[in-house]
Amino acid sequence: MNPESLRALLEAVKSGQTDPDVAMRELRDLPFRSLGFAHADTHRHLRTGFPEVIFGTGKTPSQIATLLTELGRDGATVMATRITPEVARAVLAAVPTARYLEGSRMVVFGPTPEPTRGRGAIAVLSAGTADIPIAEEAAVTAELDGNRVERIFDVGVAGLHRLLAHRETAEKAEVLVVVAGMDGVLPTVVAGLFSRPVIAVPTSIGYGASMGGIAALLTMLNSCAAGVAVVNIDNGFGAGRMASLLNRVRA
Amino acid sequence: MNPESLRALLEAVKSGQTDPDVAMRELRDLPFRSLGFAHADTHRHLRTGFPEVIFGTGKTPSQIATLLTELGRDGATVMATRITPEVARAVLAAVPTARYLEGSRMVVFGPTPEPTRGRGAIAVLSAGTADIPIAEEAAVTAELDGNRVERIFDVGVAGLHRLLAHRETAEKAEVLVVVAGMDGVLPTVVAGLFSRPVIAVPTSIGYGASMGGIAALLTMLNSCAAGVAVVNIDNGFGAGRMASLLNRVRA
Amino acid sequence: MNPESLRALLEAVKSGQTDPDVAMRELRDLPFRSLGFAHADTHRHLRTGFPEVIFGTGKTPSQIATLLTELGRDGATVMATRITPEVARAVLAAVPTARYLEGSRMVVFGPTPEPTRGRGAIAVLSAGTADIPIAEEAAVTAELDGNRVERIFDVGVAGLHRLLAHRETAEKAEVLVVVAGMDGVLPTVVAGLFSRPVIAVPTSIGYGASMGGIAALLTMLNSCAAGVAVVNIDNGFGAGRMASLLNRVRA
Amino acid sequence: MNPESLRALLEAVKSGQTDPDVAMRELRDLPFRSLGFAHADTHRHLRTGFPEVIFGTGKTPSQIATLLTELGRDGATVMATRITPEVARAVLAAVPTARYLEGSRMVVFGPTPEPTRGRGAIAVLSAGTADIPIAEEAAVTAELDGNRVERIFDVGVAGLHRLLAHRETAEKAEVLVVVAGMDGVLPTVVAGLFSRPVIAVPTSIGYGASMGGIAALLTMLNSCAAGVAVVNIDNGFGAGRMASLLNRVRA
Amino acid sequence: MNPESLRALLEAVKSGQTDPDVAMRELRDLPFRSLGFAHADTHRHLRTGFPEVIFGTGKTPSQIATLLTELGRDGATVMATRITPEVARAVLAAVPTARYLEGSRMVVFGPTPEPTRGRGAIAVLSAGTADIPIAEEAAVTAELDGNRVERIFDVGVAGLHRLLAHRETAEKAEVLVVVAGMDGVLPTVVAGLFSRPVIAVPTSIGYGASMGGIAALLTMLNSCAAGVAVVNIDNGFGAGRMASLLNRVRA
Amino acid sequence: MNPESLRALLEAVKSGQTDPDVAMRELRDLPFRSLGFAHADTHRHLRTGFPEVIFGTGKTPSQIATLLTELGRDGATVMATRITPEVARAVLAAVPTARYLEGSRMVVFGPTPEPTRGRGAIAVLSAGTADIPIAEEAAVTAELDGNRVERIFDVGVAGLHRLLAHRETAEKAEVLVVVAGMDGVLPTVVAGLFSRPVIAVPTSIGYGASMGGIAALLTMLNSCAAGVAVVNIDNGFGAGRMASLLNRVRA
Amino acid sequence: MNPESLRALLEAVKSGQTDPDVAMRELRDLPFRSLGFAHADTHRHLRTGFPEVIFGTGKTPSQIATLLTELGRDGATVMATRITPEVARAVLAAVPTARYLEGSRMVVFGPTPEPTRGRGAIAVLSAGTADIPIAEEAAVTAELDGNRVERIFDVGVAGLHRLLAHRETAEKAEVLVVVAGMDGVLPTVVAGLFSRPVIAVPTSIGYGASMGGIAALLTMLNSCAAGVAVVNIDNGFGAGRMASLLNRVRA
Amino acid sequence: MNPESLRALLEAVKSGQTDPDVAMRELRDLPFRSLGFAHADTHRHLRTGFPEVIFGTGKTPSQIATLLTELGRDGATVMATRITPEVARAVLAAVPTARYLEGSRMVVFGPTPEPTRGRGAIAVLSAGTADIPIAEEAAVTAELDGNRVERIFDVGVAGLHRLLAHRETAEKAEVLVVVAGMDGVLPTVVAGLFSRPVIAVPTSIGYGASMGGIAALLTMLNSCAAGVAVVNIDNGFGAGRMASLLNRVRA
Repeated sequence: MNPESLRALLEAVKSGQTDPDVAMRELRDLPFRSLGFAHADTHRHLRTGFPEVIFGTGKTPSQIATLLTELGRDGATVMATRITPEVARAVLAAVPTARYLEGSRMVVFGPTPEPTRGRGAIAVLSAGTADIPIAEEAAVTAELDGNRVERIFDVGVAGLHRLLAHRETAEKAEVLVVVAGMDGVLPTVVAGLFSRPVIAVPTSIGYGASMGGIAALLTMLNSCAAGVAVVNIDNGFGAGRMASLLNRVRA
Repeated sequence: MNPESLRALLEAVKSGQTDPDVAMRELRDLPFRSLGFAHADTHRHLRTGFPEVIFGTGKTPSQIATLLTELGRDGATVMATRITPEVARAVLAAVPTARYLEGSRMVVFGPTPEPTRGRGAIAVLSAGTADIPIAEEAAVTAELDGNRVERIFDVGVAGLHRLLAHRETAEKAEVLVVVAGMDGVLPTVVAGLFSRPVIAVPTSIGYGASMGGIAALLTMLNSCAAGVAVVNIDNGFGAGRMASLLNRVRA
Repeated sequence: MNPESLRALLEAVKSGQTDPDVAMRELRDLPFRSLGFAHADTHRHLRTGFPEVIFGTGKTPSQIATLLTELGRDGATVMATRITPEVARAVLAAVPTARYLEGSRMVVFGPTPEPTRGRGAIAVLSAGTADIPIAEEAAVTAELDGNRVERIFDVGVAGLHRLLAHRETAEKAEVLVVVAGMDGVLPTVVAGLFSRPVIAVPTSIGYGASMGGIAALLTMLNSCAAGVAVVNIDNGFGAGRMASLLNRVRA
Repeated sequence: MNPESLRALLEAVKSGQTDPDVAMRELRDLPFRSLGFAHADTHRHLRTGFPEVIFGTGKTPSQIATLLTELGRDGATVMATRITPEVARAVLAAVPTARYLEGSRMVVFGPTPEPTRGRGAIAVLSAGTADIPIAEEAAVTAELDGNRVERIFDVGVAGLHRLLAHRETAEKAEVLVVVAGMDGVLPTVVAGLFSRPVIAVPTSIGYGASMGGIAALLTMLNSCAAGVAVVNIDNGFGAGRMASLLNRVRA
Repeated sequence: MNPESLRALLEAVKSGQTDPDVAMRELRDLPFRSLGFAHADTHRHLRTGFPEVIFGTGKTPSQIATLLTELGRDGATVMATRITPEVARAVLAAVPTARYLEGSRMVVFGPTPEPTRGRGAIAVLSAGTADIPIAEEAAVTAELDGNRVERIFDVGVAGLHRLLAHRETAEKAEVLVVVAGMDGVLPTVVAGLFSRPVIAVPTSIGYGASMGGIAALLTMLNSCAAGVAVVNIDNGFGAGRMASLLNRVRA
Repeated sequence: MNPESLRALLEAVKSGQTDPDVAMRELRDLPFRSLGFAHADTHRHLRTGFPEVIFGTGKTPSQIATLLTELGRDGATVMATRITPEVARAVLAAVPTARYLEGSRMVVFGPTPEPTRGRGAIAVLSAGTADIPIAEEAAVTAELDGNRVERIFDVGVAGLHRLLAHRETAEKAEVLVVVAGMDGVLPTVVAGLFSRPVIAVPTSIGYGASMGGIAALLTMLNSCAAGVAVVNIDNGFGAGRMASLLNRVRA
Repeated sequence: MNPESLRALLEAVKSGQTDPDVAMRELRDLPFRSLGFAHADTHRHLRTGFPEVIFGTGKTPSQIATLLTELGRDGATVMATRITPEVARAVLAAVPTARYLEGSRMVVFGPTPEPTRGRGAIAVLSAGTADIPIAEEAAVTAELDGNRVERIFDVGVAGLHRLLAHRETAEKAEVLVVVAGMDGVLPTVVAGLFSRPVIAVPTSIGYGASMGGIAALLTMLNSCAAGVAVVNIDNGFGAGRMASLLNRVRA
Repeated sequence: MNPESLRALLEAVKSGQTDPDVAMRELRDLPFRSLGFAHADTHRHLRTGFPEVIFGTGKTPSQIATLLTELGRDGATVMATRITPEVARAVLAAVPTARYLEGSRMVVFGPTPEPTRGRGAIAVLSAGTADIPIAEEAAVTAELDGNRVERIFDVGVAGLHRLLAHRETAEKAEVLVVVAGMDGVLPTVVAGLFSRPVIAVPTSIGYGASMGGIAALLTMLNSCAAGVAVVNIDNGFGAGRMASLLNRVRA
């Protein structure tokens, strides 16, 4: 029940068309659905203008293809994450108008919006080359959400000068997404050098005491530098979406 | 807003006293509060007849005393858990009508209900003597919830015959709450011997590789015997309340 | 030794047929077997009317086929859990009268009982679509145990109104089985909204800091809401069986 | 060395006053300090207008008093976190112009700025009463950073309607800081209900399998809801500062 | 029911004094108690000749004093472990005939048996001086169980020659109990040098990554040397009792 | 250097054939090798009469085949553990006189000794059918070490009477090896029922919170029953060898 | 910008050729690059004479081949670690002048330097045969760094005399790299016997409570012996490079 | 037996004074003690010139005082670590010639050697002020070992320029000891900026997900920068001793 139908119901009570008892029952039984709240919730993603997302792991190509076309029926942009090239081939065979972005392992269906919805740019930084797929997932998510994205990849602390060469870009950005595996040191260094808020993304890159990214995650949670918040290991999508929310121009 | 006030509002709309716009605003803004749902929720504990509970850890005696009298204003029974004898003394000085149950480390304010609300009895079993305070917390909680409780304490698997001596009591009970620290073996043995559902409570009793009860918790979660579900370490209250819910005669 | 043979032994002692020494030796050596206790234990599952269960992981199709027919010899219903479609094909080739339930990944042999053994219904809720196989394992287990089961799937907290739409079903059920992976938040929310006891099932769905379901498990064990008990990660069968025990009409 | 002094040095080289060798040594030895970069870095906090912070744990009252007056010499606001009442008494005896905020366990020295530096308000939500000190630490930090702060405390998921009553406040805020211990469920529920970005703060409130806040931390990292990023356990200051950075009107 | 009373019951059946129905009921209801099995179990410790043990942690001096005298009523030896000097003073004030062994932190009541119950000696080795209390607990337990014990203390691998100087004693012993904290290396080295079975006892001595003895425990469980089995951290009593069982001359 | 060559060296010094300086250098440089100690060490396994063992994981069939024949050159018995059927086929193709024991996943080369080297029998108990391969590894190891072995398999605590039916066998054995996965409860129950020492073997059988056998390991380490020591997860060989050492008749 | 170009710039300012404004911009914008610092950083590896390294895990053969030839363009030696034989074959097909070292699983491109850059030798010790690939990775890394390397393999503590036979070699070395899996005991024993510093390398060899090398790692971190520092699990390259740095003759 | 007494024994054999059989027995029984090896081992610390160390935790002042005077009898320098001011007062009352270094929490007895035993200096860096006691423990240990030590404290990555200001000192040092708590980021940054080997020391400074230093430890073990090895949490002594061994001029 949206505001219009709520008003109609109340007008019907006023005019005597509907008995208060009937109205009461309807209102009591359907609190969420009837008061605009649930409705908004149902269409939350569409309403906010953010593309729908499909988490690809464990889904078959045909499930992904169905979801893409169904969610994208009304012209909405839909993205599917964690898609291997093999799965992508099968998905694109079924949905030829979709496209595969190998760098971010994503399949996208629908248009990429103009980068006009943010107050500024989102800068995505990554430490090593192996972290790039997660960084790309964050970057593409932010782009599909209508943001301008600056990529600053391969700027691990072993070569700090490469990072400093991008100082201006970083300082100008609204939010920094910083992706790093192994020791997870980069977000702390970035937050120490620049005065912008950092969304830190640990990756599962590493071996031994890296414990699948737990070491990098802990490093980031314990960051001495103020202005760092953390998302789950390998959660490039989550970081990109969070950055979009933070950068978004509010109506 | 309870059903009566909702009806009044709708009657006011019908009679033209209240404009639909005004009614709509009130209804949209207060969905939970206004539709009986939130109201029920607010008074959930009282409505269900279960006593209120105060988690004593980290609260001062005066905070506990205030909460006891406030929550118990309408004659409701209120219990406070994890109360040391020192804190109890201070609380009882402020609330002389409350009583301290040293065995369960609880302070209770208000009457103990008749044990007539359950389909049957709840049996509470404990493995070692050191587990008894947690077992008592479960037992007293269940009693204050209106259940008949059978205590079967100190029946660790080192002396299995003691456990078997209580077979009849256990088999007759609706639900078994089984409390054990260290190796946490008792719930599995109980569930293997008897055909009643077991709420298992690991305790933090132990040392070294007990890791504050984690070992016992894992034993119980991995129980080979069907019919075992687990609550948090030392959560006697939670087990007692869960057993009450399960035993309760429904209207 | 069942009650009849015990009586026969004692009659033989009385009549002088058997010497007390001989009787004593037999009784002392076979305490469990001879006194009806062990016997009952041996046939515990059949006696309680619950179907036998075969844990499929690590067993070959021919082992599973053998167990199905052997355990089901007397007309008992037998179920095998965690069966992949490939294994199911091989099992059904050997036992054509069995059936494969792909949704719950179970092979069932024997009749499904009438849903008449419970006091009420068991509602099974699941958070995400990826949690459904575990939820189905719980639901089918409960059905094969003779319960009426209500399925309320895909009601994660990201869309709370979907959950509230099923309020009546949930409130009417005797027990709620709530299945969730990743953050494992659903059981707490369900227990906060409804006044029914919750058997919570964490699943291994997730990645990174989900640690194979440990994160969801911890969330559930630490639930702020009273009336939640937890089973092992992915243990749909255990939750279904526990709910059956709790719902069962006692003789 | 700021831009002005760099220019002066080069002019001195040009005019022959300073020998290139001398200039080279100065420039090579002081890269960070001399080029405006390090200088900015040294005064980073003052320049950004954020108050200085002293982490109180493990520091003596006299150390804290010295740091407060030293860092606040130029009129800057300084705050010290995690101060017990006993320590506060001793600190205030030495620095009578400081003030103790018991709710947030902070000592503040210097003026509280006008709440005019943010684009909007920061809403701070807490689940239980025991989480309030951490929530207050976040709220006071944000206020001292020049933000308008809305407090929405004690809105745990056991009483969801209380949370919904604050929907408008939450939806209007730029950023939500959500503080919760035990199961750590609240940030996920908040992010599911509202469309604002959430900085989640796990607290160490709990016992047993809470493991000092690790359980709540994991719940938040695995949040199914998009738009959640996490800081360290009990890190109210970090969340408040992060929210300030995100809310800040940029020059 | 001991063998004598069982025979009496059967004679009564034979003589017609007792009806078979009555006998059957008694036998069925008391399987454990009645058949000598449970009886033996009840007196298991006394029967095996091993002293009773009281785990001192968390017990008051008066509880310990009561248990000592009660369990030792029939002349049995009783020991209480983990007794601080303060508690010991209070216990001995109440039970003057008990004695405190400060080295092992034990209070003993009753005689120390002759060391004649073992096939050979038990050698107890410890790595550092800080491990000695646990080693003494093992040694005294074994002595009170009637074993000859050889102490070889302070033979950590930093000075391997000290260990080798005791080769003959070690090789002659029936069982070696090896106690070590920190890196927990000693049991592996001992099992590599000598051909005797090793009961390894990790201690909680250490700091940082020692994690309360978990590191030493893991070292021992992963021992490359065959002939090592492990008990819980700081469980000197358990190691001493296990060694006693292994060394014991069987009837 | 064996005793004979040491004597020869000293005789050569005595006779003047060898200069003391030369002898001194040889003796100082080769302490272990020269004094019979190292020599004994080198041949430790052969000397003790225990078969050599090859840990099969990660070795190629040809490596295993080479090791079998090399170590078994002098007629010694050699066993290889953790051999899959595929690897076994390849090994036996190369070493046709070896034999594969599928139940224990071992390849054995050389004779099985008479079971005459132990004081008594070793009983090997296992909880579930999935634990049998590890139990068989322990049993076969003990048999190849010259022990008489009693197998008591599939006696999990869900059917305690099955265990009690083997009471006599268990009580007669010198040592009990008890193998269990999942909850790891069996060793505690066995040690509570019988008065024999238990070597407990956790297995990796389980899922979820079993964490690859860690849960069962912790249960066993925290066993309330005295007389339990533990080896690594799935370490059937280690348990069998330990039991052999403990059972061995000493010269 | 190296010192020479910095001087040139300053001379140009002095001579009037370059305006101070222009110089200032260049200096401010390129702090790292321009002052010799960043330049050194960029070419750090080449300058120090250490070969470049490619971490092979997760890279395709063609990526590895490209990196080898690109990094080795100027005659530098380049090594790629963690290369399976299959990948090596493909890499060598593309870069025929490279060579595969199967023992260390490395592909090397370019010359092996003379072992003349160290003050002394580096000794690499390994415990078991399964640890050898990691030990070889350390050894080859050190050799390619220009060190003389002594290999002392298969000297686990089960046969301590083998280790002692290499005493002289170990005592003469500048640094010892000690590689061990399972219990990780060897570095402590080595540091106890010899007076040389030890770089300890835990390996992931083991099973069960080895937890992928965590157990060995903890053993080494808790080493009772002074003179032990630890690198990540399986990090043979890191240990070899660290030893090179420590052994290096400084200009 | 030192070399002299070995020679005497051999001369006695040569001269016929001692029978070869007698000599053989003595040599075989005392391998370590007799051949100079064990002797060297016994006096290892004195021989190497490193001061003895007493780990203060858990020792009484009188135990520490006794150890100081006993170990320092021959003029050797002795240090005791982890001494609180209270304990220090008591120790110095008993040993007035000892001195307390509050910064490093150490009591030292005996002279501080000239800093002439190292090839160069050892630089000790620390991240935060709270890390200084551990850094001082490392620094003082190295000084007492005869090294020149450069302290570079409070150079956390939040102010990178402070670190760079000490570039020359760091680059000149032989070894860098880098101490950091919380995120443990500093060693990686140091190893990335400078080309010197780093001994990294995690500290237990932090809270929440710092887990007593485990987070910092993991960061350091996973360091992306080559040339980092790690010691136990808070092990300043170990790092200082390791650095001494590495810096030491060899005879």
